[in-house]
Amino acid sequence: MLAHESTINDYDHYSKVELFFNPNSIAVVGASKHINKAGNVIFSNFAENKRRGIFKGEIYPINLKDESILGHRCYPSLRKVPGNIEAIVIVVPSKSVSDVLRDAGTKGVSVAIVISAGFGEVGNDQLENEVKNIAKEFGIRILGPNCLGVFDSYTGVDTLFLPETKVLKTGDVMVATPRPMQGNIAMVSQSGAFGAASLDYLTGRQIGISKFVSFGNKVDVSEAEILHYLNHDDKTRAILLYIESITHGRTFMDVAKDVTKSKPIVVLKSGRTKAGARAAESHTGSISGASAVYDAAFSQIGVIRSDNMSEFFNIGKGLAFQPPAQGRNVAIITDAGGPGVMASDACELRGIDVKLFSDETINKFEKLKEKGILPNFVQNRNPVDLTGSATSEMFEKAMSIVVADNEVNGIIVIGLHHVPAIQEDFVDRIGKVAAGTIKPIVACDIGETEMAFYVRSRFEKFGIPAYPAPEDTVQAMAALVSYGEYLQKANCFDSYLDSFLTRSVNKIDIQK
Amino acid sequence: MLAHESTINDYDHYSKVELFFNPNSIAVVGASKHINKAGNVIFSNFAENKRRGIFKGEIYPINLKDESILGHRCYPSLRKVPGNIEAIVIVVPSKSVSDVLRDAGTKGVSVAIVISAGFGEVGNDQLENEVKNIAKEFGIRILGPNCLGVFDSYTGVDTLFLPETKVLKTGDVMVATPRPMQGNIAMVSQSGAFGAASLDYLTGRQIGISKFVSFGNKVDVSEAEILHYLNHDDKTRAILLYIESITHGRTFMDVAKDVTKSKPIVVLKSGRTKAGARAAESHTGSISGASAVYDAAFSQIGVIRSDNMSEFFNIGKGLAFQPPAQGRNVAIITDAGGPGVMASDACELRGIDVKLFSDETINKFEKLKEKGILPNFVQNRNPVDLTGSATSEMFEKAMSIVVADNEVNGIIVIGLHHVPAIQEDFVDRIGKVAAGTIKPIVACDIGETEMAFYVRSRFEKFGIPAYPAPEDTVQAMAALVSYGEYLQKANCFDSYLDSFLTRSVNKIDIQK
Repeated sequence: MLAHESTINDYDHYSKVELFFNPNSIAVVGASKHINKAGNVIFSNFAENKRRGIFKGEIYPINLKDESILGHRCYPSLRKVPGNIEAIVIVVPSKSVSDVLRDAGTKGVSVAIVISAGFGEVGNDQLENEVKNIAKEFGIRILGPNCLGVFDSYTGVDTLFLPETKVLKTGDVMVATPRPMQGNIAMVSQSGAFGAASLDYLTGRQIGISKFVSFGNKVDVSEAEILHYLNHDDKTRAILLYIESITHGRTFMDVAKDVTKSKPIVVLKSGRTKAGARAAESHTGSISGASAVYDAAFSQIGVIRSDNMSEFFNIGKGLAFQPPAQGRNVAIITDAGGPGVMASDACELRGIDVKLFSDETINKFEKLKEKGILPNFVQNRNPVDLTGSATSEMFEKAMSIVVADNEVNGIIVIGLHHVPAIQEDFVDRIGKVAAGTIKPIVACDIGETEMAFYVRSRFEKFGIPAYPAPEDTVQAMAALVSYGEYLQKANCFDSYLDSFLTRSVNKIDIQK
Repeated sequence: MLAHESTINDYDHYSKVELFFNPNSIAVVGASKHINKAGNVIFSNFAENKRRGIFKGEIYPINLKDESILGHRCYPSLRKVPGNIEAIVIVVPSKSVSDVLRDAGTKGVSVAIVISAGFGEVGNDQLENEVKNIAKEFGIRILGPNCLGVFDSYTGVDTLFLPETKVLKTGDVMVATPRPMQGNIAMVSQSGAFGAASLDYLTGRQIGISKFVSFGNKVDVSEAEILHYLNHDDKTRAILLYIESITHGRTFMDVAKDVTKSKPIVVLKSGRTKAGARAAESHTGSISGASAVYDAAFSQIGVIRSDNMSEFFNIGKGLAFQPPAQGRNVAIITDAGGPGVMASDACELRGIDVKLFSDETINKFEKLKEKGILPNFVQNRNPVDLTGSATSEMFEKAMSIVVADNEVNGIIVIGLHHVPAIQEDFVDRIGKVAAGTIKPIVACDIGETEMAFYVRSRFEKFGIPAYPAPEDTVQAMAALVSYGEYLQKANCFDSYLDSFLTRSVNKIDIQK
């Protein structure tokens, strides 16, 4: 271990990380009255969330010239604030950050989120080191600099200087950087811009989050410490991590290995190629390291690596919603032959089996055909192709048979709503059967208009993640399979499953 | 050549394929008054499109019991219709199809779209052969059976039995299978269900189409003949083909090779794996053939193969909107470092170069920095990272420099709208520079809420295809690069470009 590396134990001993997400009092240094200024947006977030009763702590705007901001008394410096201050957000020019931190130290501030840019990322290493040393001297924990900081959907902490809406040249107001609803995915990003964009994506796709962290230049708090903290966070079930470089690789490995026993970590590690690595170096000054090395390390500690942005989110949703699979063999049930073929292809390309059903299972289908409950032309060898004649009842029957098959470890449902006899209740019937199994189930409906949105959202009400393309659906299932394999190898499948099922009892909670 | 194969020349001599898309008169055999019946939906489509002045031909409902349907006089058989009938849609039970076709033959009908299922796809080969023979005997061209038939956004032909809306159990009406707006992409699908879903996708993503064809069991008209027809269709600029098996491989190769000289063909060929092939065999009775054989064949004749559904549509839009690239080296301009790195990775993984700019180009950027027009911390070696300080003007300047660089063959613009100083006019400024170059340009903005939709749609108003993820954007550019290489090898790059530029003059047309 290198001398400057901290360890997991260090985190346990003197971590103040909780205060970044849930402080009893917070000051915004550089708060401003002037619209569009970062210091205005950030202080407004707090003032608004306090007004609505979401943020429950004390808030203090700090700047030299104003008497008050948004009805809150403004102070010229941290030292002038009468009460205690646990956390501060710093949004002043980079050259003034050190002075603010010294003030904060004197005042006894525990944690500082340094939004200000102009440090190592533009070659200003001296200033960055100064910040690091002052923080160490006063024992202040620092997130940043050069970051967006934190958004916590439950406590109302929101240090993002990007307002939810933007005013266009026409004067029209448009939703630009919305905050997602409450949920159970934590999103952690080295890139601020990608972080902001991910909030926009997650909001639009109605995927709730617990916490968002953009950690920037990480002079102090690193991705490892954030992961460690999230492991103990009740609201977080799955962690999404966008990263270009990893600081303190050994500590990261130790922490991540510990976390993945109880919570899945999905990583989007960019800078994988020469071109990407050069871009990453320009961007965050990161030396990306060889892709193969990362692949090997991640797989060893159960971190799930995604190849691209949509896979990143697809997998994250899958792992947050569904239990892992206990084997590699899946069943596909579809009312649309073509997408069933596409899903079969995608499974095999990812090393997932779509084996012929056992005689016992095939016989169950054949009996339903004899009784006239299923049409004769339904295919039931795996995939089950209910064809365009599918009804909601047929989906339910097929699900029940397949769920009972011990050789089937997971189920991919492709329910295209376009098929004539399908009405919205087919989702409810599938959801009912799904509630009685611990096998992972993922769903697909293709389309980008009203009923497709409705069907996918309805699936998710039942805790079944739903996707707009067969291949997206298979990405989620593949992650559930490989994570299940990892947990088995690490001898913690059962403990993970127990805790997953406990926290999933109230499925509607996932949707809140 | 096998004895039963037709050739390109045959198609030229006696093709009646045009009549499937633009008949002067059409009869719907099996038209019905009863809501939700396929024969009701199809006849209603024609009645409604005629009422609105979109479909301009004569329409005749045919059934034994009704006097009239939707105000149109109904006839008990084709022979009783007083006027001439060029085309018919058959939507009666499979066992009656032969009789209808004999009637049609006597009446002198030229083409028949057989919607009815219950033929080869359920093992009823004898019935399918009978249909084939009657058609040959009377010289009737047949699309189907077991298909959705045709939707033509310009002529108003719409034989889809899936209504645009569905009534839910609650009584609510929801958009379920919408028809896309007019545009320049032809969508051809062997799978009816995937075809219907693709219409839903294309509508929601606001991608206009010229024609939609679902050809089902293809007893007569094959994918090759449809491609040949589309090659001569002015409204079609790019062809999307979903297929599980190819009939008459040699003819397909000849036709496709001819088409790709003037119009790109993007194929999604499923049944690539053993699991997929087994599913395909159950679905369409297709023997899929080895994937490597298809890959080799497609690449030889310039057909672009896509790996999955989203790539299929991403590439299709890219090729319909932008000219092909004249080389493999691209520039990336971004206001978001992370997504710039992601795009760089995706480029290299697809064999696209993101080379360091020439000294000349770098110097141009450095001069702008000296003048204070660009901040000093902007990265300008490729990618160009304008950072979160990006303005609309900075995007325009960077675009102008990069477009002028002879070593750059294409440009990927990543313009995240979340960045503070970016307003909607940055798209207009990029569009203005783009109008002056024949290099392909593709764009990305990440997000699934209001402003992201607006920005992507605004890019497309300028003829620049825009995507919701960096990797999607690179998929489109990769296709523009590889198609450009094919056209150069086939000595038809210049002729393709000429015709592309001519038809692209009125770019707003693409958006109509």
